Amino acid sequence: MRRAFATALLSTLAVTLAAQAPAPPPIYGFNDPAKQRALEQKFDAAMNPADLRAWMERMTSHPHHIGTAKGKDNAEFMASLFRSWGFDTAIERFDVLFPTPKTRVLEMVAPEHFTAKLAEPPLPEDATSNQTAEALPTYNAYSIDGDVTGELVYVNYGVPKDYETLERNGVDVKGKIVIARYGASWRGIKPKVAAEHGAIGCLIYSDPRDDGYFEGEPYPRGAYRSDQSAQRGSVADMPYHPGDPRTPGVGATENATRLPMNEVKTLTKIPVLPISYGDALPLLRALGGPVAPNDWRGALPITYHLGSGPARVHLQLAFDWNTVPAYDVIARLKGTDLADQWVIRGNHHDAWVHGALDPVSGMVGVLEEAKGVGALAKTGWRPRRTMIYCAWDGEEPGLLGSTEWVETHADELRQHAVAYINSDSNGRGFFFAGGSHSLERLVNEAARDVVDPERKVSMLERRRAADLAFANSAGERKELRGQDSLRLDALGSGSDFTPFLQFAGVATLDIGYGGESEYGVYHSIYDSFSHFMRFGDPTFDYGVAEAKTGGRMMLRLANADFLPFETTTFATTVGRYLDEVKKLADSMRDETEELNRELQDRAQELASDPTKPFVAPKAQAAVPHLEFAPLDNAVAHLQRAARDFDKRGATPGRDATLMQLERALTRSEGLPNRPWFKHYVYAPGFYTGYDVKTLPAVREAIEQRKWGDVNAQIRATAEVLENYARMLEKT
Amino acid sequence: MRRAFATALLSTLAVTLAAQAPAPPPIYGFNDPAKQRALEQKFDAAMNPADLRAWMERMTSHPHHIGTAKGKDNAEFMASLFRSWGFDTAIERFDVLFPTPKTRVLEMVAPEHFTAKLAEPPLPEDATSNQTAEALPTYNAYSIDGDVTGELVYVNYGVPKDYETLERNGVDVKGKIVIARYGASWRGIKPKVAAEHGAIGCLIYSDPRDDGYFEGEPYPRGAYRSDQSAQRGSVADMPYHPGDPRTPGVGATENATRLPMNEVKTLTKIPVLPISYGDALPLLRALGGPVAPNDWRGALPITYHLGSGPARVHLQLAFDWNTVPAYDVIARLKGTDLADQWVIRGNHHDAWVHGALDPVSGMVGVLEEAKGVGALAKTGWRPRRTMIYCAWDGEEPGLLGSTEWVETHADELRQHAVAYINSDSNGRGFFFAGGSHSLERLVNEAARDVVDPERKVSMLERRRAADLAFANSAGERKELRGQDSLRLDALGSGSDFTPFLQFAGVATLDIGYGGESEYGVYHSIYDSFSHFMRFGDPTFDYGVAEAKTGGRMMLRLANADFLPFETTTFATTVGRYLDEVKKLADSMRDETEELNRELQDRAQELASDPTKPFVAPKAQAAVPHLEFAPLDNAVAHLQRAARDFDKRGATPGRDATLMQLERALTRSEGLPNRPWFKHYVYAPGFYTGYDVKTLPAVREAIEQRKWGDVNAQIRATAEVLENYARMLEKT
Repeated sequence: MRRAFATALLSTLAVTLAAQAPAPPPIYGFNDPAKQRALEQKFDAAMNPADLRAWMERMTSHPHHIGTAKGKDNAEFMASLFRSWGFDTAIERFDVLFPTPKTRVLEMVAPEHFTAKLAEPPLPEDATSNQTAEALPTYNAYSIDGDVTGELVYVNYGVPKDYETLERNGVDVKGKIVIARYGASWRGIKPKVAAEHGAIGCLIYSDPRDDGYFEGEPYPRGAYRSDQSAQRGSVADMPYHPGDPRTPGVGATENATRLPMNEVKTLTKIPVLPISYGDALPLLRALGGPVAPNDWRGALPITYHLGSGPARVHLQLAFDWNTVPAYDVIARLKGTDLADQWVIRGNHHDAWVHGALDPVSGMVGVLEEAKGVGALAKTGWRPRRTMIYCAWDGEEPGLLGSTEWVETHADELRQHAVAYINSDSNGRGFFFAGGSHSLERLVNEAARDVVDPERKVSMLERRRAADLAFANSAGERKELRGQDSLRLDALGSGSDFTPFLQFAGVATLDIGYGGESEYGVYHSIYDSFSHFMRFGDPTFDYGVAEAKTGGRMMLRLANADFLPFETTTFATTVGRYLDEVKKLADSMRDETEELNRELQDRAQELASDPTKPFVAPKAQAAVPHLEFAPLDNAVAHLQRAARDFDKRGATPGRDATLMQLERALTRSEGLPNRPWFKHYVYAPGFYTGYDVKTLPAVREAIEQRKWGDVNAQIRATAEVLENYARMLEKT
Repeated sequence: MRRAFATALLSTLAVTLAAQAPAPPPIYGFNDPAKQRALEQKFDAAMNPADLRAWMERMTSHPHHIGTAKGKDNAEFMASLFRSWGFDTAIERFDVLFPTPKTRVLEMVAPEHFTAKLAEPPLPEDATSNQTAEALPTYNAYSIDGDVTGELVYVNYGVPKDYETLERNGVDVKGKIVIARYGASWRGIKPKVAAEHGAIGCLIYSDPRDDGYFEGEPYPRGAYRSDQSAQRGSVADMPYHPGDPRTPGVGATENATRLPMNEVKTLTKIPVLPISYGDALPLLRALGGPVAPNDWRGALPITYHLGSGPARVHLQLAFDWNTVPAYDVIARLKGTDLADQWVIRGNHHDAWVHGALDPVSGMVGVLEEAKGVGALAKTGWRPRRTMIYCAWDGEEPGLLGSTEWVETHADELRQHAVAYINSDSNGRGFFFAGGSHSLERLVNEAARDVVDPERKVSMLERRRAADLAFANSAGERKELRGQDSLRLDALGSGSDFTPFLQFAGVATLDIGYGGESEYGVYHSIYDSFSHFMRFGDPTFDYGVAEAKTGGRMMLRLANADFLPFETTTFATTVGRYLDEVKKLADSMRDETEELNRELQDRAQELASDPTKPFVAPKAQAAVPHLEFAPLDNAVAHLQRAARDFDKRGATPGRDATLMQLERALTRSEGLPNRPWFKHYVYAPGFYTGYDVKTLPAVREAIEQRKWGDVNAQIRATAEVLENYARMLEKT
């Protein structure tokens, strides 16, 4: 589902050098690292890229979105593999709402007539692209039905600040149909914000500036999006809650109570359709009104205007509102002395169409990893803790399979789960990882111990090199040089880690490789085996690398003498987030003062061109100084407690505390206005969708200028950190 | 010639508020400002926008580049106007080298055949665009003749750092023809740098990203460059010297000694042709090789590749190497008691084709100003100092008319010139000004005393508002709020101020209005009266504003009781330039250290994709610590001396010193390797062409890593500042 490669690479940081000394470095959590290292060497010996290739070719031979026979077949195939490797394997079924299109009509009715093609043509160079009868057409899942006609308005990425710009240009979207380009936010934000501003319909297109020929030659000449290719995807209001729209918070099991359709909260408010840039071009070319601001302009060979009109479009959408089965594959290898501590690994198996990269590239790495664990098990070895491998169905429409499973097993997970490690799309390039910062040391040590297949240095060293080489400024390079480990990204959403981390409070990681594969076919019929073998990871070396890296993390968590969590790293990181949030408030205060001053001395108006519409921005209430002291105290307390805890090392009850620690960061009532999301350190942004907001209750109250709420959210967030600190102190 | 609007606006700063108090503010240089103010009100009363419109319509009715009958007719027309207003007027003739094309062939010979059109089609909406027989075709003046065939390479803007990027991508231009886009440097830099790297030919095209539909609708629907329009322009090596290529340093009078053609230094080394984006598209589309870096990509609907090839092009150019007459109009109004102090004003009158905006919009403002001065003279008033109004010919090919006049009259100018005030293209929008910082106060007071016709506040207030409204960051806004005057830009080149400032050492200003007019037809056949009346300044209100602003500066310089120069402003400004130069050296030192460290630990190589060519950057010699002390001492001395001088106020001999002060900033031997440029504070960059390099001898030695030369240039620059300081102390 997610597109993490480039951003993951650019947004995080650097690393320790792999030690070259004769004595191998220690492994955190182990009293006898040599023994663990020998185990991992046996595990590595089982790896074979030919497996991954064969599995991918088989699993991507036909479209396999949720509800298809092929999807079920893939689940059964994987279950048979897990069983063959010695895992106790079950397929768990959930029944979930999954709309598919009956009617899709988009036409321009003025100033001239144009009917959008809404179809991705078969290509001789792409073996499975002719399976159009089996494939889902291009659409956005969980758009409502609708039949609307109206003038068109171009809204850039369709995020809240874009509507401020429209207002400044005298353009209103009320009663209009908006056309937004993909990018800058998760797609579901675009119709949500459009509807909040009174639009009656929403088109989302892939501009070639962000996703097409601007990046590289279009497929099939090159890897990138061609003019008739469109990005499918979910537009359910997932920042409100993911999973089955009819069973929020509980598993969509056979007998679950389901909301009636009219009480479902996460459908869009207006009809939404994704289109190609080939279909978008005539519409955008027909727009009049003000010329779009410089940074709104894409790579189509036109002058971008805002509208509204004279382009008028008719959008008609109708869906079959089916309930379909989701098949999750759950494979267990029972632990020995600590069998009630669960270490969980997962990747989704459903795709929008064939999904060679998204998600099969990641899934086959997880399978290879499980095969390696199975190979160890065949020698009689067993992990101390229980290892669980999962293949999720229905991730694409809304993290359905993982969410329903987590909701169903929430009580067990809260009791038993040590950690969850997710992956998704995987390709050539650089290691990336995000997640709970108590696991940062585990991640660094795993990346230190896997060799990059292209450059033959450790994954950690190569990532550090890439961070330096691609850094944008001398300041950034200096900061990177000052860091002695690879910092984990904080997790927002966009893949199956969300229910584990943000609903159940399980310590979570999301890992993978990327940055060198060329993609450009995200959620299209061309994300195929043909494409992957030219532009993805044709040797599957990085699929194996994923298995080796994920495998080390799983085996270390499962086998450790004491759980390899490091709480000081978490405490330090939260301190940085608190600094960010304070700086955010300070800079908003300065900007607000400056804006109000410019309104008072009329600078904006005096600078404006009287031949063009001028709408002054609204004056903003002054940003108050906020009562940060409770959070300051909580972070200080947390940092003291963590330092002492880590220094004490292995003590009785330590593992029991560590397992529960992440749970302490949740509050049962959830975040303000979205009770499903319970984590008070990491959440997806309510107006970004995938991108994380750390300390979300505080940060979003500030961003949304809810000055009356901020101090209460500071206290609520301080409380969870104080609880966390006290748990450390009690152990 | 220049395109200053947007950049001028974004690169300079803010302002005092116009005083609203009952007592009018003082005018620097005047003991009785009320009397001067009354004079200026009479001057304003003479202004009439209908004059400007009529003159523009007449002067742009046919192409009037240097050497045409229409150009001569315009000169004679203006001379008759000046005479009718009471000026003692002469036309001075110079004979200068001016090549025009005989042969222009551009064709792609592989992988397919394409012949470039190289023609701007007539448009029914543009009254003069059908005068193609009289118009110069699209070409670059002072390209050499040539007939070359070679593979094509895309070099972005064709500036030195672009060639470093090509090298990193394994692309060499030796024996190839390069295609560069217009922008980022003056056009003449592109063939110069291409030839330095071994290219055999150079095409320069207008990418629609920078100059075309990306900015706004193409002409005639909108104001912007259409697909068959190309930018004419000079490519002589003007940063080496401007003016007639055959008479560097001396006037191209009838009997002047002329260099034989084979000794001329400023022709290009390779043939060069400007082309439209319509002609460029098939060539760029046919390029293979690596995909161009992100910031090299324009707005054509293609993937930009570097090449070289498979596109192969044939470029054939031959020119008539004519000598043509340039007609400068020089109109004098003799001063009373200080007639040997000259205050000079100028604008060019030649165009590439019809040149409604460039230069006639500025020229008609200067004419109106002279008319206003004439109206005062008709009442019996005379200025204390001599006022000289000039209309230059041959600016477009290389500042020919102004340079030859300054070279011819250099000794008189060094003796008599108080200041030169230049203008060029003028349009709707905001006041901009650059020049000698001793004149900053004069400029601020003039802009304070002219009212903006659109927003009815002072020009100074509106510019301050625009700087704030368009500022890019909170930091920039804070800096603007801290400034109590509008800072002058430093002058590089690009218009007729260059010979006055940088050859003769005359205190110089360049002024005008712009930022709201839509242009997009620079140096094309469509820079016409038709275009100007839709997108330029159709009411001519800003032409009148130019006359009022320039007129105030001229009248105040000519009439002042003591010359309104403020040396502290200059001294403070030079202190800022010195800080910049030191920071430049420091940041180059840090970057060089980091680069060498990355080469040592192989970060660049480890981060690179092994499926793509990788060429490591070259290690650089460490940046030494430089001996800045002489400049530090000189600036400190200058600042002390200036403070004392300004504090002393009007003293005997003050004006005589002020007239000569700017001369003290020159050295007769000129800048390193370019003896014509004599100013040691302001110069055009040797590798930027128009953009200024302040403290150029020092700054360029650092930029070019000539570590052995820097300390000597520091001492040479310190010397001119010490001389300046001593002149202040002696008065």
